[in-house]
Amino acid sequence: MSFDVLQKKIVEKKNPTIAGLDARIEYVPEHIRAKYTAQYGETLQAAVEAIFEFNCGLIDALCDIVPAVKPQSAYYENLGWRGMEMLERTIQYAKSKGLYVVADIKRGDIGATASAYSEGWLGRTTVGESQFATFDADCVTLNGYMGADAINPFLQDCERFDKCVFALVRTSNKSAVDLQDQMCGDKHVYEVMGDLTMQWAGETLGEYGYNRVGAVTGATYPEQIKTLRAQMPHTFFLVPGYGAQGGTAADVQYAFDENGHGAIVNSSRGIMCAWKKTGNNGTDYQEAARNVAIEMRDDICRYITIR
Amino acid sequence: MSFDVLQKKIVEKKNPTIAGLDARIEYVPEHIRAKYTAQYGETLQAAVEAIFEFNCGLIDALCDIVPAVKPQSAYYENLGWRGMEMLERTIQYAKSKGLYVVADIKRGDIGATASAYSEGWLGRTTVGESQFATFDADCVTLNGYMGADAINPFLQDCERFDKCVFALVRTSNKSAVDLQDQMCGDKHVYEVMGDLTMQWAGETLGEYGYNRVGAVTGATYPEQIKTLRAQMPHTFFLVPGYGAQGGTAADVQYAFDENGHGAIVNSSRGIMCAWKKTGNNGTDYQEAARNVAIEMRDDICRYITIR
Repeated sequence: MSFDVLQKKIVEKKNPTIAGLDARIEYVPEHIRAKYTAQYGETLQAAVEAIFEFNCGLIDALCDIVPAVKPQSAYYENLGWRGMEMLERTIQYAKSKGLYVVADIKRGDIGATASAYSEGWLGRTTVGESQFATFDADCVTLNGYMGADAINPFLQDCERFDKCVFALVRTSNKSAVDLQDQMCGDKHVYEVMGDLTMQWAGETLGEYGYNRVGAVTGATYPEQIKTLRAQMPHTFFLVPGYGAQGGTAADVQYAFDENGHGAIVNSSRGIMCAWKKTGNNGTDYQEAARNVAIEMRDDICRYITIR
Repeated sequence: MSFDVLQKKIVEKKNPTIAGLDARIEYVPEHIRAKYTAQYGETLQAAVEAIFEFNCGLIDALCDIVPAVKPQSAYYENLGWRGMEMLERTIQYAKSKGLYVVADIKRGDIGATASAYSEGWLGRTTVGESQFATFDADCVTLNGYMGADAINPFLQDCERFDKCVFALVRTSNKSAVDLQDQMCGDKHVYEVMGDLTMQWAGETLGEYGYNRVGAVTGATYPEQIKTLRAQMPHTFFLVPGYGAQGGTAADVQYAFDENGHGAIVNSSRGIMCAWKKTGNNGTDYQEAARNVAIEMRDDICRYITIR
C-alpha cells in the first residue's frame, strides 16, 4: 500500500533511476532487425519480435544495477495487438529479473471504465469463477483531469495487490504551461492537482514515509520540484525529463528527501539509444546501455546520498 | 480535416447518437457466453470471442439507424492482448458496415509518444518501407492536460487521413468538479481547456462549419453545455452522460446548433444492456438494443431538427 516495494529496490541498488522501455523499431540495432525481417519479412510481427529481443537484452544488461523499468504503452499500441502481446511478455520478463515495472499508460477515465483499466493493468480480470492477470504491472501512471473518479478504482487494486500509481502533476514538456501553469487563485493548476493527489492518497504511509499515490513532476523545472517536494512530503515522485529533455542531476536532486528517498528519475532514449554513439552499429548495445545507466546513477548520486 | 464525415452520416440517418461498445463479459447474454465457454473453457479467449459475437450482433442490429459507435478501450485492455486483437476486429467490422468509429482512448502524452499513439490509432505504423494500419479508428478521444504537445501529433494524421479528435473539456462524472470547476481568474479550468481546444483546432472549417478538434462535454450539466456551445461555435461536441448517467434529451438539446448539427450523444449501457429489461434472457438482445436506440433517437429529435 505504499512505495516501499520500489524504495527497497532503490536502496538495495543505491540507484534512484528507472529505465524507459519505449522501443520504436528505429531504436533496435540493425543486426537484430535483420534477423527477424529474414524470418517474418517486413511485417509488424518482425518489428514486434525484434523489439522483444532488444527489450530482453536491455533488461539483462540493466537488471543488476537498475531497480525499475518503465515501458511506455504508446510504443506497443503503435504495433497493434501484437505489440500489446509483446508488452505482456516484456513486463513478465522484467519482473522475473527482479525489476519493478511502472507501466506508463497515463490513463484517465471514470467509474466502471477506470475499474476495467485497473483490473487489466494492476489487478485481475474475472471470467466466471476464474481470475486472470493480464498486463499485471507493479504501478501505472494516471491522468487525474477527471478527478477522484479516475483514481479511486485503481486504489482498490493497489490495496489488494500492494501496488501503486503515479498521477500527472507537473509534466516536463514545453506546452505543460498551456493548462498546468494557469493560476487558480494563488495556486497553479499543477499545484491544485498536487493537492488533489495528496487527498486521493489518504493517510496511510509506508516505512519510508510515502503513500501510494505518487506524482509525475518534470525535471526541467527545478524550482517547481523544490516547491512540490516541500508541499508534498509524503508523495513519491516520478521525474521524467533527465537527459534528452534537458534536465540535469543538479536539477533533479530537489525531488529527493534528506535520506535520498522519495523519487525516481527516468531516462529512456539516453539508455536505449546509447549504442548509437559508440560507432559499433549496435553490436554493443547492452554494454552501451549499461555504461550510460551507470553514468546516470553516479551523476545523480553526486548530489544525493541514499541511506 | 473536419467532422464532415461524421456529420454527413448523422444527417443521412437523421440520428445524432453514438452507441458505446463497452462490453464487459457480464453484459453478454448467457446463451452466447455458454457457447464459447463450452469451446474454450472459462478463459480470457472465451470471454473475448463471446464479446466479439455480441459486438457484431449489436453492430448488425444498429448499423442502418445509428451513424457511429464508440468502443471504450478500457474494456478491451481489461482482457489483455486478446482483447486488443478483438478490438481491431470490432473496429474493422463496424467500418465495413458503414459506421463511423470513435475509439474512446482518452490518451494524453507528448511528442514522439503522442505520435506513436496517433500512428497506432488513426494513422499508419511504419516498418522499413512498409506501412500498416492497426487500430485505424476514424476518431479518438484525447486528454489535453499536457497541452498542445499532446494534441498536435494527432492533427498530422487527421490531415493525412481525414480524421478527427475529441479533447476532454467538461466531463459528466461527479468528481469532474475536483479540477475542472476550479476558477482560473474569471474562467473555470474547463473553459480554459475549451479555449485551448479552439486554439489547437486552427481556422479550417468543414462544410457544416466545424473544425477537426471536437470537445467532450458532459450532459449532466446543461447550463455548462449552453455556455460552451456559445463560446465554441465551430467545435463539434461528444456528449456522454445521456441515460445511465442522468442526462436527458431536454438537457442535451443545447449541444446542437440551429440546424441540429455539431453534436453527437452517447449511450453505452442503455443500449448494450437493453436485453436485461425484456425478460427473455438476452435471446432478443439485438431487437432490444435496436428498440432502445430508436427510442433514444426519437427522444432527442423531439427537441432538435436535423437539416
